[in-house]
Amino acid sequence: MHIADLLRGLDYFGTVVFAISGALVAARKGMDWMGFAILATVTGIGGGTLRDLILDRPVFWVSHWEYIVLCVLTSLVTFYFVPHIRRRYSWLLWADAIGLAVFSVLGVQIALSTGTSPFIAIIMGMMTAAFGGLIRDVLAGEPPLLLHREIYASAALSGGVVYALLVVVLHQPIWALILGFIVALVVRALGIVYHWHLPAARSA
Amino acid sequence: MHIADLLRGLDYFGTVVFAISGALVAARKGMDWMGFAILATVTGIGGGTLRDLILDRPVFWVSHWEYIVLCVLTSLVTFYFVPHIRRRYSWLLWADAIGLAVFSVLGVQIALSTGTSPFIAIIMGMMTAAFGGLIRDVLAGEPPLLLHREIYASAALSGGVVYALLVVVLHQPIWALILGFIVALVVRALGIVYHWHLPAARSA
Amino acid sequence: MHIADLLRGLDYFGTVVFAISGALVAARKGMDWMGFAILATVTGIGGGTLRDLILDRPVFWVSHWEYIVLCVLTSLVTFYFVPHIRRRYSWLLWADAIGLAVFSVLGVQIALSTGTSPFIAIIMGMMTAAFGGLIRDVLAGEPPLLLHREIYASAALSGGVVYALLVVVLHQPIWALILGFIVALVVRALGIVYHWHLPAARSA
Repeated sequence: MHIADLLRGLDYFGTVVFAISGALVAARKGMDWMGFAILATVTGIGGGTLRDLILDRPVFWVSHWEYIVLCVLTSLVTFYFVPHIRRRYSWLLWADAIGLAVFSVLGVQIALSTGTSPFIAIIMGMMTAAFGGLIRDVLAGEPPLLLHREIYASAALSGGVVYALLVVVLHQPIWALILGFIVALVVRALGIVYHWHLPAARSA
Repeated sequence: MHIADLLRGLDYFGTVVFAISGALVAARKGMDWMGFAILATVTGIGGGTLRDLILDRPVFWVSHWEYIVLCVLTSLVTFYFVPHIRRRYSWLLWADAIGLAVFSVLGVQIALSTGTSPFIAIIMGMMTAAFGGLIRDVLAGEPPLLLHREIYASAALSGGVVYALLVVVLHQPIWALILGFIVALVVRALGIVYHWHLPAARSA
Repeated sequence: MHIADLLRGLDYFGTVVFAISGALVAARKGMDWMGFAILATVTGIGGGTLRDLILDRPVFWVSHWEYIVLCVLTSLVTFYFVPHIRRRYSWLLWADAIGLAVFSVLGVQIALSTGTSPFIAIIMGMMTAAFGGLIRDVLAGEPPLLLHREIYASAALSGGVVYALLVVVLHQPIWALILGFIVALVVRALGIVYHWHLPAARSA
């Protein structure tokens, strides 16, 4: 398999799981299917859109309209299955975690391909991974997972650092994708399962 | 009348009605006139700004400063008339509905003029129409009309589809503008008057 | 001292004080140090990022990564000092006020340097000064200072107008920086100390 196909496939996969997470938040808020479609789409493409604007690349979905179609179809499927889903919040956390792991790695890859420094590329990876979920939570009026969750941005950061090291230092793009994804997902999973958290400020 | 003049006039008109809707939300929140000016301006130019950023066009109001002046003047007039307005929420809904109808059509027109596919152009029309009101509601801390209203984004979608069909298939730009606007406004009006809504998910 | 050095130094200074204001809001919300770093960074670079996107310039921190480092270091220092800070809300208001004064002047300077009209440059100055704090408040779920405070945007506007007049009419860039900064800070300080406010609409 060509690496470009792998990247495209991973990107579709991350878009779909983030779209599911957006649709599950729409379900919690009792929205209609148009609300599902909008929240799923914004969550699925939001991070990549901000990344492309900041890197001054053409916004990816303007020429690749299949991303919008994927998000809308995903939202409709979720809409019809939601009444049958038990423990929806758990599903939301895991869909969000997989999207986070995929996009933290892909965001670094795309930023490096435009010639940014590895440091900025890692920041762009975190932004790609986190912004879709952030805008989902702000639009739905929920406290952002990104700011209030144990081990969330840290997971994106870990995955991005592993990816950047393996690509820039060891020139292993395939292993970088696989290990970066696994590290981000495992770190986030530890946060979800064991409620690990970083030290917090004492609230005023 | 030249069609470029018609488009410019419609754009001013949509900007003013959206600015009124922003000022009316500022009134509900008891803001001062600076808050009126800011919320009116963000609502009036927000959708077009996001559209231009994503399409990688120069942001329209940077060279056409009259849009900012229009929004600020509109906000000040609204500020002085607000104490005399009864049933402000009803006015807000209708100002928002007219802005939605104008911008759903103009957004498609501008996106098509940059060479995007009709599908993406319709999405850009919805975004142009919806984003100003969305950012207005988020800044004011209100649940977004876009996500929680009966028949809101659907109205923008209907208008955009009618416009795109009449332009791309039948090459009737003037009729496309008129009919697209009417369809979007009528669909939204039915939603407001009869409280029509799409099927919603059962809230968790 | 070369004026370019002065501008760069002022820009670092404004970034740091805004980052402090973001970290202090993170402290109020009891966030962990990752939340501190994210909220500080978004507040420190948010206004300049939006300004660069709208003016179609390269986003400043993509090539100058030291801005991100500055924000993250500032947030960590604030994180460790926060338990020892009394009257944090007062510190937040003053850090925000200094950032507002610096960025209202620098935003105008950068916009003028890209050839925009003085009117639009003043608007860009307000946006540079206000957007970082606005996104900080929206992400933290607080009512935006920008929209609800006595004399906030007005201070940025005053500083920007003084700067633009002194540069465009009198060709005095250094005095413009100094006086623009002082005017913006004094106007904001009067608002903070005396609780001055503009006339507000009667709430519905």
